[in-house]
Amino acid sequence: MAPAKKKSKQAEDKHAAESIKTIETFGKDMADVIKKEHSPEFTLPIRARNNISFDEKASVLRLGGKRGSRRFLNVAHTRKFMQSMLIAAACKEYIGMNRTVGKRELYYNLKHSLPKSKENTFEDDTESGTTLNDIEASLGLLRERLHIEAKARGSIYGDITLSQAGDTFDCSKLGRGGWAIPGFVEDVEVNNFKADFILAIENDAMMSRLIQEKIYKKLNCLLITGEGMFPRGVRRFIKIMSDKLKLPVVAFVDGDPYGFYIYSVLKYGSMELAHLSDRYAVPNSKYVGMTMDDIETYELQNVTEKLKEVDKKRIREEMEYPWFKKNKVWMRQLKMMEEKGVRIEQQALANKSLDFVAKKYLPEKIEKEEFLL
Amino acid sequence: MAPAKKKSKQAEDKHAAESIKTIETFGKDMADVIKKEHSPEFTLPIRARNNISFDEKASVLRLGGKRGSRRFLNVAHTRKFMQSMLIAAACKEYIGMNRTVGKRELYYNLKHSLPKSKENTFEDDTESGTTLNDIEASLGLLRERLHIEAKARGSIYGDITLSQAGDTFDCSKLGRGGWAIPGFVEDVEVNNFKADFILAIENDAMMSRLIQEKIYKKLNCLLITGEGMFPRGVRRFIKIMSDKLKLPVVAFVDGDPYGFYIYSVLKYGSMELAHLSDRYAVPNSKYVGMTMDDIETYELQNVTEKLKEVDKKRIREEMEYPWFKKNKVWMRQLKMMEEKGVRIEQQALANKSLDFVAKKYLPEKIEKEEFLL
Repeated sequence: MAPAKKKSKQAEDKHAAESIKTIETFGKDMADVIKKEHSPEFTLPIRARNNISFDEKASVLRLGGKRGSRRFLNVAHTRKFMQSMLIAAACKEYIGMNRTVGKRELYYNLKHSLPKSKENTFEDDTESGTTLNDIEASLGLLRERLHIEAKARGSIYGDITLSQAGDTFDCSKLGRGGWAIPGFVEDVEVNNFKADFILAIENDAMMSRLIQEKIYKKLNCLLITGEGMFPRGVRRFIKIMSDKLKLPVVAFVDGDPYGFYIYSVLKYGSMELAHLSDRYAVPNSKYVGMTMDDIETYELQNVTEKLKEVDKKRIREEMEYPWFKKNKVWMRQLKMMEEKGVRIEQQALANKSLDFVAKKYLPEKIEKEEFLL
Repeated sequence: MAPAKKKSKQAEDKHAAESIKTIETFGKDMADVIKKEHSPEFTLPIRARNNISFDEKASVLRLGGKRGSRRFLNVAHTRKFMQSMLIAAACKEYIGMNRTVGKRELYYNLKHSLPKSKENTFEDDTESGTTLNDIEASLGLLRERLHIEAKARGSIYGDITLSQAGDTFDCSKLGRGGWAIPGFVEDVEVNNFKADFILAIENDAMMSRLIQEKIYKKLNCLLITGEGMFPRGVRRFIKIMSDKLKLPVVAFVDGDPYGFYIYSVLKYGSMELAHLSDRYAVPNSKYVGMTMDDIETYELQNVTEKLKEVDKKRIREEMEYPWFKKNKVWMRQLKMMEEKGVRIEQQALANKSLDFVAKKYLPEKIEKEEFLL
């Protein structure tokens, strides 16, 4: 077995053993309380907005210390308690079987009527999803470590050889495509790579342009796209790659409130996953474009798009996010966007020429380190 | 160079030469008319519903014989004529540069103000998209042959080695992921493969389940997902693979009007692309599931989902499509769905067990050839 393959297998086994042990301890604690004829309960950090704050020093979103509980003998909690036990037990089984499971598959797998009642374990996948979040937060275990898959939507291309599930493959030898990033990436290992940074690209057509222009060789970088707002699985993959390779992430997205938000989630984490910022956020993320200044600098006035009301509302919301509000550079961008009343897409660079992005825009900005931070 | 690589390069060159010749002839015809000081024009098949019919013998949607024209000296046509010339010229350039271009990139690339006027060549990408359709229909050339890319969203996994752009890769050696199907697949060549059919899967989480269960070995098939309604690029890829490998396509989708429609587009083509059915539709497509009968057969009553009004409306629309209307098997399914008032997702099979789909459902149905046709 090649070293990375072996390492991949070992890492997977180690994670699996740890997760199983955590779930077993959790279950044993419940059983002990039940044997004493007391009401079992467990605690978990509260994930509401009033318990989320922006840690300026570490530059990530964090949960505060407030905790809640789920008690079996509290009528308001009984159903949630039952659901939590079901999900914890199922995850232990999945890990033992060495299977990973989608969120909706989890819901279907566990849905049944409780014996001697008409009550279903779960009525919809919102219920199972919320409970999964609870278990994840209570156990302090990433859902991927519980063998629950994230949405798979994205790809990687560049000079890197990866190993997973016994296979080894070179992500620069995949034609015009790349490797389709799966929903479970905890066991991905790196055999070797050649890159100075990871370019995180919003749009799949821009990904194709940059693959064609061989930007990975020109700028010595890995290309990852998540096709729009990066789904959880792609963010986790970017985080794992950034950590393993010790590389910064450079975000290349549309110059609009959605692009800005993609960057902010990459760098600081998200509200929804504030309890897991350390496992998702890449504080060493930089923003290369598109910026509001690019419109003048590269004479793109004719290929901007007018902001809609919904875009303007989003700008005002983002101006209230602490990581933007306290950051002059970003407030300037948001204000410029509001004043100009336009957004600018990555692909608008094609107005200069198809290869402008690869021959001039990215090389110049990256060489001069013209990043927004 | 390996044979498939060489073949890939040759095929690409041949397609490129053909496309360039077609565009040049088109342009030369216009120039000749202009030199004679007449008004240039070109004709194209009309793509309206009243010119689309279902060819029962060939079992595909087809355009009828009605044609329209675009005349330069007709005020209602002048703008469209100008746009058509711009797009035809740009495509010739892209092919010559050996670049492929996204739809939105095309729009940005060609947008500019006309000299001595405030008029823009294109106001939005709907305009350029419509014109692209016109050029495609008029020249009888697939837009991919004009080097315009389709949406990239989907992947392939299985025992097949492909070549593209000088690379050769085995799609069964890609860990838990697969090959991310790019937006341009005209130059994909097959080195070798081992499969009896192509399984076209609606949902990416189901794709992951079937990769994990090694269904490609068990059932000797290739797995392709398009993540929901298959985008044009994935349909084209499925068509190319089905043709090259001479394999049927088996659709495995949700048991609802959207799943039925995915299948019907795979098999018969779509209204929008009726002028190109021969290049997209795979008449040798079969439907394995989910069916309305599956609900009883596999006791899935507890994991159906209630139909919404929009679903019911869609069912009634599909009952009017000629390929369903004249087909008793499909009308029975649609009526059952309407009567039961429920839909059934692929992943609902997880209610039996995670591996039920791979151990029982698919093997049994495929072995017994329990297909809807």
